[in-house]
Amino acid sequence: MKSPIPDYLGRVLEEARPFDSGQPASYIDVLAQADTSRSAVAVATVDGSVYSAGDDEVDFSIQSISKPFVYALAIQDQGLAYVLEKVGVEPSGDAFNRLSLETGTNRPMNPMINAGAVAAHALVVSTNATVDQRVDRILQALSRLAGRQLKVDEAVYAAELKDANRNMGLAYMLKAAGMISCDPQEAVRGYIRQCSINVNVRDLAMMAATLSNGGVQPVSGERVISQESVRQVLSVMTTCGMYNSSGDWIASVGIPAKSGVSGGIIGALPGQLGLAVFSPRLDEKGNSVRGVIMCKQLSNDMGFHMMDVSQIAGASVRSWTATIAGGSKQPNACRQAVAVFELRGAVRFAGAERLTRAVMNEIGKSRPNSGSGPGLGKDAHVCAVMFSFRNTYSLNDVARRLIHENIRRLSTTTNVVVIDPAGVLKMPLDSKQEGEFRQVRVVTSEAEARDHIGGMGCRVVPNEDSL
Amino acid sequence: MKSPIPDYLGRVLEEARPFDSGQPASYIDVLAQADTSRSAVAVATVDGSVYSAGDDEVDFSIQSISKPFVYALAIQDQGLAYVLEKVGVEPSGDAFNRLSLETGTNRPMNPMINAGAVAAHALVVSTNATVDQRVDRILQALSRLAGRQLKVDEAVYAAELKDANRNMGLAYMLKAAGMISCDPQEAVRGYIRQCSINVNVRDLAMMAATLSNGGVQPVSGERVISQESVRQVLSVMTTCGMYNSSGDWIASVGIPAKSGVSGGIIGALPGQLGLAVFSPRLDEKGNSVRGVIMCKQLSNDMGFHMMDVSQIAGASVRSWTATIAGGSKQPNACRQAVAVFELRGAVRFAGAERLTRAVMNEIGKSRPNSGSGPGLGKDAHVCAVMFSFRNTYSLNDVARRLIHENIRRLSTTTNVVVIDPAGVLKMPLDSKQEGEFRQVRVVTSEAEARDHIGGMGCRVVPNEDSL
Amino acid sequence: MKSPIPDYLGRVLEEARPFDSGQPASYIDVLAQADTSRSAVAVATVDGSVYSAGDDEVDFSIQSISKPFVYALAIQDQGLAYVLEKVGVEPSGDAFNRLSLETGTNRPMNPMINAGAVAAHALVVSTNATVDQRVDRILQALSRLAGRQLKVDEAVYAAELKDANRNMGLAYMLKAAGMISCDPQEAVRGYIRQCSINVNVRDLAMMAATLSNGGVQPVSGERVISQESVRQVLSVMTTCGMYNSSGDWIASVGIPAKSGVSGGIIGALPGQLGLAVFSPRLDEKGNSVRGVIMCKQLSNDMGFHMMDVSQIAGASVRSWTATIAGGSKQPNACRQAVAVFELRGAVRFAGAERLTRAVMNEIGKSRPNSGSGPGLGKDAHVCAVMFSFRNTYSLNDVARRLIHENIRRLSTTTNVVVIDPAGVLKMPLDSKQEGEFRQVRVVTSEAEARDHIGGMGCRVVPNEDSL
Amino acid sequence: MKSPIPDYLGRVLEEARPFDSGQPASYIDVLAQADTSRSAVAVATVDGSVYSAGDDEVDFSIQSISKPFVYALAIQDQGLAYVLEKVGVEPSGDAFNRLSLETGTNRPMNPMINAGAVAAHALVVSTNATVDQRVDRILQALSRLAGRQLKVDEAVYAAELKDANRNMGLAYMLKAAGMISCDPQEAVRGYIRQCSINVNVRDLAMMAATLSNGGVQPVSGERVISQESVRQVLSVMTTCGMYNSSGDWIASVGIPAKSGVSGGIIGALPGQLGLAVFSPRLDEKGNSVRGVIMCKQLSNDMGFHMMDVSQIAGASVRSWTATIAGGSKQPNACRQAVAVFELRGAVRFAGAERLTRAVMNEIGKSRPNSGSGPGLGKDAHVCAVMFSFRNTYSLNDVARRLIHENIRRLSTTTNVVVIDPAGVLKMPLDSKQEGEFRQVRVVTSEAEARDHIGGMGCRVVPNEDSL
Repeated sequence: MKSPIPDYLGRVLEEARPFDSGQPASYIDVLAQADTSRSAVAVATVDGSVYSAGDDEVDFSIQSISKPFVYALAIQDQGLAYVLEKVGVEPSGDAFNRLSLETGTNRPMNPMINAGAVAAHALVVSTNATVDQRVDRILQALSRLAGRQLKVDEAVYAAELKDANRNMGLAYMLKAAGMISCDPQEAVRGYIRQCSINVNVRDLAMMAATLSNGGVQPVSGERVISQESVRQVLSVMTTCGMYNSSGDWIASVGIPAKSGVSGGIIGALPGQLGLAVFSPRLDEKGNSVRGVIMCKQLSNDMGFHMMDVSQIAGASVRSWTATIAGGSKQPNACRQAVAVFELRGAVRFAGAERLTRAVMNEIGKSRPNSGSGPGLGKDAHVCAVMFSFRNTYSLNDVARRLIHENIRRLSTTTNVVVIDPAGVLKMPLDSKQEGEFRQVRVVTSEAEARDHIGGMGCRVVPNEDSL
Repeated sequence: MKSPIPDYLGRVLEEARPFDSGQPASYIDVLAQADTSRSAVAVATVDGSVYSAGDDEVDFSIQSISKPFVYALAIQDQGLAYVLEKVGVEPSGDAFNRLSLETGTNRPMNPMINAGAVAAHALVVSTNATVDQRVDRILQALSRLAGRQLKVDEAVYAAELKDANRNMGLAYMLKAAGMISCDPQEAVRGYIRQCSINVNVRDLAMMAATLSNGGVQPVSGERVISQESVRQVLSVMTTCGMYNSSGDWIASVGIPAKSGVSGGIIGALPGQLGLAVFSPRLDEKGNSVRGVIMCKQLSNDMGFHMMDVSQIAGASVRSWTATIAGGSKQPNACRQAVAVFELRGAVRFAGAERLTRAVMNEIGKSRPNSGSGPGLGKDAHVCAVMFSFRNTYSLNDVARRLIHENIRRLSTTTNVVVIDPAGVLKMPLDSKQEGEFRQVRVVTSEAEARDHIGGMGCRVVPNEDSL
Repeated sequence: MKSPIPDYLGRVLEEARPFDSGQPASYIDVLAQADTSRSAVAVATVDGSVYSAGDDEVDFSIQSISKPFVYALAIQDQGLAYVLEKVGVEPSGDAFNRLSLETGTNRPMNPMINAGAVAAHALVVSTNATVDQRVDRILQALSRLAGRQLKVDEAVYAAELKDANRNMGLAYMLKAAGMISCDPQEAVRGYIRQCSINVNVRDLAMMAATLSNGGVQPVSGERVISQESVRQVLSVMTTCGMYNSSGDWIASVGIPAKSGVSGGIIGALPGQLGLAVFSPRLDEKGNSVRGVIMCKQLSNDMGFHMMDVSQIAGASVRSWTATIAGGSKQPNACRQAVAVFELRGAVRFAGAERLTRAVMNEIGKSRPNSGSGPGLGKDAHVCAVMFSFRNTYSLNDVARRLIHENIRRLSTTTNVVVIDPAGVLKMPLDSKQEGEFRQVRVVTSEAEARDHIGGMGCRVVPNEDSL
Repeated sequence: MKSPIPDYLGRVLEEARPFDSGQPASYIDVLAQADTSRSAVAVATVDGSVYSAGDDEVDFSIQSISKPFVYALAIQDQGLAYVLEKVGVEPSGDAFNRLSLETGTNRPMNPMINAGAVAAHALVVSTNATVDQRVDRILQALSRLAGRQLKVDEAVYAAELKDANRNMGLAYMLKAAGMISCDPQEAVRGYIRQCSINVNVRDLAMMAATLSNGGVQPVSGERVISQESVRQVLSVMTTCGMYNSSGDWIASVGIPAKSGVSGGIIGALPGQLGLAVFSPRLDEKGNSVRGVIMCKQLSNDMGFHMMDVSQIAGASVRSWTATIAGGSKQPNACRQAVAVFELRGAVRFAGAERLTRAVMNEIGKSRPNSGSGPGLGKDAHVCAVMFSFRNTYSLNDVARRLIHENIRRLSTTTNVVVIDPAGVLKMPLDSKQEGEFRQVRVVTSEAEARDHIGGMGCRVVPNEDSL
């Protein structure tokens, strides 16, 4: 069977193809003479699959799409605090090649405009590194992100260097403002080399997917960018990635993105995928005409808009009461009431809050050891609380802390058994000695839990009136 | 047992309390004389729980926090396209009370600055509505969002109206630019009335939670704002909500937000919760000093940053092969190979793509009816494919379409049984007549599925070498 | 004989007539429907002659040309210092209808843009005057400047008031910024009334000539504007009069000027004349197309450029030595050497300095009473110094002070006779008693001087070797 | 006798000395370590006298004061039209070191900000000249302006070159914008060398006086700058010379000026003098604190404000009727009426217009050959018109043309005799053959005129009732 995804991408591409307005970038011949029929689209998932259509193996220079990645490297190499002293994070409202230094701080407004990108470049490795050291670092990092060895397009580099006056101007201004330490000429040479690295849409999709995957390259599993850097980079792509139409882009497409003058655009949808499009004709804002159309189509078709609340996954809580029946320790099968809470899905604060609420409802505040809630008979004695995390895919820190706190509070008055086969709760299997969780027992299966509560051979029988 | 959440909020509040720099807004007495000791915080979940601490029942005028909600109403009442003709969506880089009309279009840059907010106000109900009609509409909508009847603080209204020259100036400019149709004096009177509606942090948290919940009020279940409006509002809050520090806010806090001059701030974390803070002392940018501190603390502690990839829920796919054993139709328990795919969690494109990939891997492209994959013996005849959606909490459109397409393609060569007790796939139970899914059978339990494949009484026995 | 000046103006007009690009102002019908064939030019001299050509009796609304005159009235009524607190004097680089408040002071940048003009209007009479009081004051002052009773064009006023949103916006902003005290609505009503006063080019030329004449209306001789105000107004017209092309205008035309949206332009050449042109078609900057052409032609033909050094009048000094011959007191015609200095022309510092230098050269520093200089024999005894101001048309203060000082210094060692028939030196005829000018005698004719020096009947005989 | 001018300057200097706020420029050590007690003032007249006080022989680097002179050289070397393509003339409203490229044209706003000054520098000699050629040209020209050989301060040059990043940035930006042709590094090196030329206040005063004298160095008499360039330079100094306080400077001081970072300021009062002040402490706008005080004092004391109408010289016309009496040709002394017009002073349009008006009044339009006017009896036959230019110091072109036209018109009906000993009218002595001035006779003395009209020995007897 053939995957329908490439077919879909092919259709998206063909629907964009008739749009042939715009012109390729004209400031250097090597870009101006680009084959304008070229078009491609690629999607890479956070677990490493890449789908593509069109001219997906055609290389082109990465240009400004290198900016978010090099900003990430700057943060890695110098720390976020220091980078923030040299490059701001506010949208400038200006075109990409404006100086836009922030009043007061003299920082370039953000790392997505050229001035900020040159400043970010100059922070890579160290402030006194050589051009070669920086370019090496960047080339190797981008190659690791793409999953193959990339290289500089020397023809593009040579042509851009000839036409580098504006960037030279920016670099000297940055030097004058104290925002770069190295020789401005070297900063520009390195920056242009960075922009001249050749990529194709499959490379770019994988690089974007690495951002979406929190910095871990989906195929190699290597952490190329730290969590902290990714968060910062995606934030800045959100507010500044599409220059002075960033607001419109976020409202209409809703994906942190970055475009380049050779006709590429990347988008990174956190936790889901990276996408990349390519076609050389640019609109008056410098974005690929077909590229924008394809991105809008993809976002619309596939529900990629960040603010589309319908797309956000929730977690669910199920709770019921049960009776422990049978087993060696309780041969008489006395009705021993157990409150059971199961937490399903990917759990963040909201899920943990739901669990907390369920616990509050079931285990009455006033009578912690007496039954309450719809399923627990008035006279029932809740001898134990059981939490099941078998269907919990992930827990973030705040959720974990909140659940720990629930368990801690419960454990002061009742027995608690935690079923956590995957260890998502990160609670020691034998928590007794800690003092905090005196009556807590962490087990890996329901059978163990039953044994613990009711003795060997018991069954947990959901009460009939439980949900 | 007591919920630990209010305790946590109380701690956040107490940690912020020592910060007593800044001053309350001074332009009108009624704000200048605010009790600066007042501080409160509230969190509301998308399923309607509200937690709060501090002066959570103290009312204050909503001021600019009304802007995103009234923008939403404008979109509801006039349609997004028309609203976009009158109010832009780009960050302005300017202070809140600047005119900031966009070159070319004359639109105010965005609806979060005063000029854009007045323009948005003037679109509510209709362009020729009266002040009373607009204010009524807004007051009722905000009340439904808050879950209680709100009312205008007449003292604040009277004071603000006296000091409305700047807003009057903006309104006349908007009129001159063709961005409002009504009398500028009326636009300002209505706008000031809108800003003078009294709320407390619990109201605001619930209003924000409604945004986070896609426009449906969590408690009443009423859809107050359309999905489309919510998406637009959250996008604009992301890029423009905190005026000229929006970039910094998104990078450091990562929550779409809006602040007001009386000392309130709301944040809306899509799919999760709404939060609100309050304290009258403002920093030089006009944001509540303690409010900002509390928001940063909450975001940091609770992992609320939108771009924190670790927080994004994924879906998982499990697949194995099974053999149908027993049952009335197959008394001899011939080895009938079945490929089983289970999709768990909240599924969007990425999850559906994973499922697609698993199907590709297991059901070899070249030999669709022959076994492949780790668990299927070379000679095994795959007589059926079974999909289980018992643990699938949600499916978005693109995921659903992609899975339908997978099933359609498979169904041309093999039997497909779909177990979908909750109907998340939205596939007709009996799909035969459609022509498209000729060999597809949708059932609600595994037992039904077994019966369908192997006949009454069969069991699906996972192969030993299955994952 | 017919004066050639109207013929010349007629030619200038005819040469401009073929230029029919541009459109009349379109924002109100009454301007949009202007007869675009109308064209006129007028020149008024500082002694009250007016020459004109074309439609010189066609009235049109004065519009922005009222700004410099009302600014002058504001200065008269409030004092320059107070006006400067409310309206700045820097070119804004912005279009006329931009707000352009100065950072820090909140003042509108200058009184030639609308915001500054409204602020200046609101200062006329007093800050708590009524609209009628201000408009009366302005109408009367403009009438006195024009030399005939002007009146408001009520149709224009009504139309402009309907379309006054932008100015209303500016006025409310000014109120908010504390730059006007009165009701913004009243400020705009008054301002629009001021702009609706009807004038023709002959009126405007006379009004401009009044500025050129230092504030004294050339025909009536009435001082309508103070010297201080005129200086300030002409300065601001120089740097800000033609909006964002003021620099180009001063470089190419070189005349302080102001244009209006109904198609008029005035120019005021200090000390010489006022000019006015009119034709309704405007270029993209809002200046009359034919008007600009006529102004450039006039400036070029007539050498009106302020910075054209060749045009600046100088003063000249002639000095020679003479011998007193004959007369009753000196019958023996002893060779009595006299140094004579004649100062001709309009004398300012430079002329007085030349005289000083000549005195230094002739009356040797070391030997004050001995002859020196080319014309004075070594042995000659300079018995007197004679200054002649018969051909001195004017002396400014600094020149007068400098000459007084020269005379004072000389008078300590020698006899000084001053011939000053017109009293330009303002030195008492009999200065003896002052102590300062002990040996100075001021007379009104050469005969008196001779009599004083040599006795009745003497002649002053220039030495042969004098220049 | 001692000239009072140095004493005056000394007093101005002493009154400014107590103002010791501000700091010398700190960006390079060699400026930061300036002796802040140093103060000087100098005035140079357009005929070459220089007066000074204070540290008038202390050299300092010329810095930005070189800008107007180099702008003049650029105009000389490339023509004004070409220079205007590369450098604008509008005030920028920005600080001196801002890029301020004009929207649309990309020109730096004006040649007084650094960007425009670098662009102007790069136009000197030719666009492909070497640094040495440009600096030589500039150094020689400035030396000729100063009247002594100037030289570059190599210490200042070396220090500034080290700190040239901002100017380098501007130069590369200019190169990118197509505003300079040469290598940006060379443009900056040359520009910095230009700024490092050492001068003292006497040099600067003489350089400014050369501008005031229309480009002719007062002492050497050499034309260093063309008339056209001077006009342009003074215009730009008027609107842009004092950066973003140019409007205030013109309003309060009223002299085209330029300041420099080493503490100098020059002012050029057209037709009168150049002034220069020096003191290293700068205010927050970068202008010498004491320098500004001294300039204001000088302007105020000496009536230097350009717009001070009282200072503008006028011309006067005297007219009377006379009778020719005696002489060989008219022994009977028939009453032969003659109209006499004498024009005195420096005559421009206004003076010529006055003469024209007087002729119109005296020589009735309807009866050209009959007497009219107060002084001419009804029956008198005007046999001749006599013009006297003995007391006319100068005539500009338009005045000359207008007078020629008057004479031409009169000459068609009557005899005209012109007394023009200095030839200011530039009319051929014997104009008969031209056809145009058939009846015109140009003579050099009144005696000749009498002879011509009445024959040898006649006298011109003013009528008793003449003015």
